[in-house]
Amino acid sequence: MRVLGIDPGLTRCGVGIVEGSPGKPLTPVFHGVIRTAASAHIGERLDEIAQLLADYIRAYRPDAIAVERVFSQVNVSTVMGTAQASGVAILVGAQAKLPLSTYTPSEVKAAVSGSGRADKKQVQTMVARILRMSELPKPADAADALAIACCHIWRGGAKAKFDAAVIAAKAGIRQ
Amino acid sequence: MRVLGIDPGLTRCGVGIVEGSPGKPLTPVFHGVIRTAASAHIGERLDEIAQLLADYIRAYRPDAIAVERVFSQVNVSTVMGTAQASGVAILVGAQAKLPLSTYTPSEVKAAVSGSGRADKKQVQTMVARILRMSELPKPADAADALAIACCHIWRGGAKAKFDAAVIAAKAGIRQ
Repeated sequence: MRVLGIDPGLTRCGVGIVEGSPGKPLTPVFHGVIRTAASAHIGERLDEIAQLLADYIRAYRPDAIAVERVFSQVNVSTVMGTAQASGVAILVGAQAKLPLSTYTPSEVKAAVSGSGRADKKQVQTMVARILRMSELPKPADAADALAIACCHIWRGGAKAKFDAAVIAAKAGIRQ
Repeated sequence: MRVLGIDPGLTRCGVGIVEGSPGKPLTPVFHGVIRTAASAHIGERLDEIAQLLADYIRAYRPDAIAVERVFSQVNVSTVMGTAQASGVAILVGAQAKLPLSTYTPSEVKAAVSGSGRADKKQVQTMVARILRMSELPKPADAADALAIACCHIWRGGAKAKFDAAVIAAKAGIRQ
């Protein structure tokens, strides 16, 4: 199974693609960050994120998408942009008819490091170890996205199948 | 000028279309609410909102879009859904290449009622008066969306022209 992990953000949206299945070694396929200029109009920024995510889906054909859930943080203006970007990421996944799961930051950290309170460096280190990468994946948002994809493969295999079955059943009912 | 006002929300997304120009009487064109089931998957809900907003844009051909800005409220889980829906609304506007402005709830209230702290009933009453409607626009989310559109025509005419000029200039540079 190939999973596209997304760490949503308006200024930096982390993207990481991992292939594998529970109990087997995982392989990194791609990681990177979509950056949009703070000076650009919010509409342009969200459109750019949507277009690039759709491009990645077309290019890498993931079987599922996993998005980090947004929580209220200290900086309210940042969290709103993050939530808007996450809405767009979820929409792009739905438009591509891919099963989608969301995970909290602490679920992702716990999955790759054993601790829900791991810091960014620890997550990078563990992602590099799990995916047998010779260097730490950078920047941190891309490492987070890889961690989300790993988390989904390990934790979410069953959940993704369930979601896909629900979507298929609903599609059947509608026909 | 015809303006599509949007009061974003995941469970209820208000939509209101108003035609007019500053200093002239405004005319209501359409108002309603897009509802999505809380039991549905977040991806389906955002996709439904995106599809219906795109349908409204195709059907009513607005010249501009005005979206209410999301603020952190007491209920954090609700505000995240609202922010995700607003991200999708802004994306759909950008994809339709329409100039987009955002207004805070108090800017909208102040524009139609003279007070930034007007309650829902007051907004409905003033929207009905401004648009010479024989009945109060319902539900409240649809009335809010009409108020956002009125606010944009009165306050945002100049801003919309500026935004359109910026977008046109950027498009020119890219060609």
